[in-house]
Amino acid sequence: MSQAREVDVRQPILAANAAAADTLRERFAAAGTLVVNLISAPGSGKTTLLEVTVPRLRALGLRMAALEGDIATERDAERLRAAGIPAYQIVTGGTCHLDARLVSAGLDQAAFGPLDVLFIENVGNLVCPTSYDLGEDLKVALLSVTEGEDKPFKYPGIFARAEVTVVTKADLLPHVPFKLDEAQAQVRTLRPDGRWIVTSATTGQGIEEWCAELVARVQAKGATRG
Amino acid sequence: MSQAREVDVRQPILAANAAAADTLRERFAAAGTLVVNLISAPGSGKTTLLEVTVPRLRALGLRMAALEGDIATERDAERLRAAGIPAYQIVTGGTCHLDARLVSAGLDQAAFGPLDVLFIENVGNLVCPTSYDLGEDLKVALLSVTEGEDKPFKYPGIFARAEVTVVTKADLLPHVPFKLDEAQAQVRTLRPDGRWIVTSATTGQGIEEWCAELVARVQAKGATRG
Repeated sequence: MSQAREVDVRQPILAANAAAADTLRERFAAAGTLVVNLISAPGSGKTTLLEVTVPRLRALGLRMAALEGDIATERDAERLRAAGIPAYQIVTGGTCHLDARLVSAGLDQAAFGPLDVLFIENVGNLVCPTSYDLGEDLKVALLSVTEGEDKPFKYPGIFARAEVTVVTKADLLPHVPFKLDEAQAQVRTLRPDGRWIVTSATTGQGIEEWCAELVARVQAKGATRG
Repeated sequence: MSQAREVDVRQPILAANAAAADTLRERFAAAGTLVVNLISAPGSGKTTLLEVTVPRLRALGLRMAALEGDIATERDAERLRAAGIPAYQIVTGGTCHLDARLVSAGLDQAAFGPLDVLFIENVGNLVCPTSYDLGEDLKVALLSVTEGEDKPFKYPGIFARAEVTVVTKADLLPHVPFKLDEAQAQVRTLRPDGRWIVTSATTGQGIEEWCAELVARVQAKGATRG
């Protein structure tokens, strides 16, 4: 086994990002907006999770919008607009993650108005988005049961940083060799205080629990404003 | 929609990689080794595909080995050793792709001996590995039916560069809303001359076709050696 050398070029980039993220955080705090940074592999179901989340939170009167990060295409933003919330697509070109300056520029362009929740759907990638603070309140890692239960230890950075891990596509558990307990044990090792929510957008399993987690965080954020 | 600026820092890195890749290509040509660079999202089934490929090619007398790229853990190399081929794990730390110098150093460490086929299983990522030439004969993109048929257009770089796209987990098609025709049409647009092979490691569907593709390429490479 060999170990790659550290890529020193990243340090000044991350420092500049941290400064821009702090500015974003102040902006979100002043507005009382809960900001959720969703990170997963491609195809784990980030957009689908939001499609089932939006109607439930809207029924509670929450104002929401989404920033969508993608290498190419407007497809995810279109899906969320169809679900009934404003969505702005940030096409990153070749870049494998969003950064705080892209989010800041996207927000200026989007001009969403007052929000209770801003969802940031990061580029589908378990590596690059991990290190980039977007001024969010929480990172949410999605893990589909079709990906295999070894993923938390293979991508420890994101599962250690995520306050919430959402398992998706639980309706497929009868058809795939996924050991739920083993995945959960890995996430617990990496993030002992993290929330673990098992969901299926198809059957609705766990969606109420996930929405309740968001609502509690919106209320806590509102209480600290001003 | 906004467009991120190009990251200029990548140009000298890619130029250095290209030079190292050319050296690798000469080394592989002299040895008559077919080199296959497997790229996909995390959990698309790269290691599982190799687990079912290895016994079939070994039965034909082919000598194989694997280089495994991962952010963390030795798990994939262990699985391939269990499948009966030498495997060497390159743990990249935080880096989201293999590069030619890591492959070169890994090969020196691994000292595999004469090979007909070298599999390079890249880090699970549809973005970063795309631009890094590893001196391979072909890139193979894997796309699991659980990931959604929109992925080729969302990650056009890899599907345009891959000589072969292998659809995986086709046994799950009855349980997921994946439009096979739509995915194939996207890949055809991006790579009109590419091969498209639909497989399931569980049922064996398409595995003979995939192995025949590799064998034909091994024979073509052997014919051009010396």
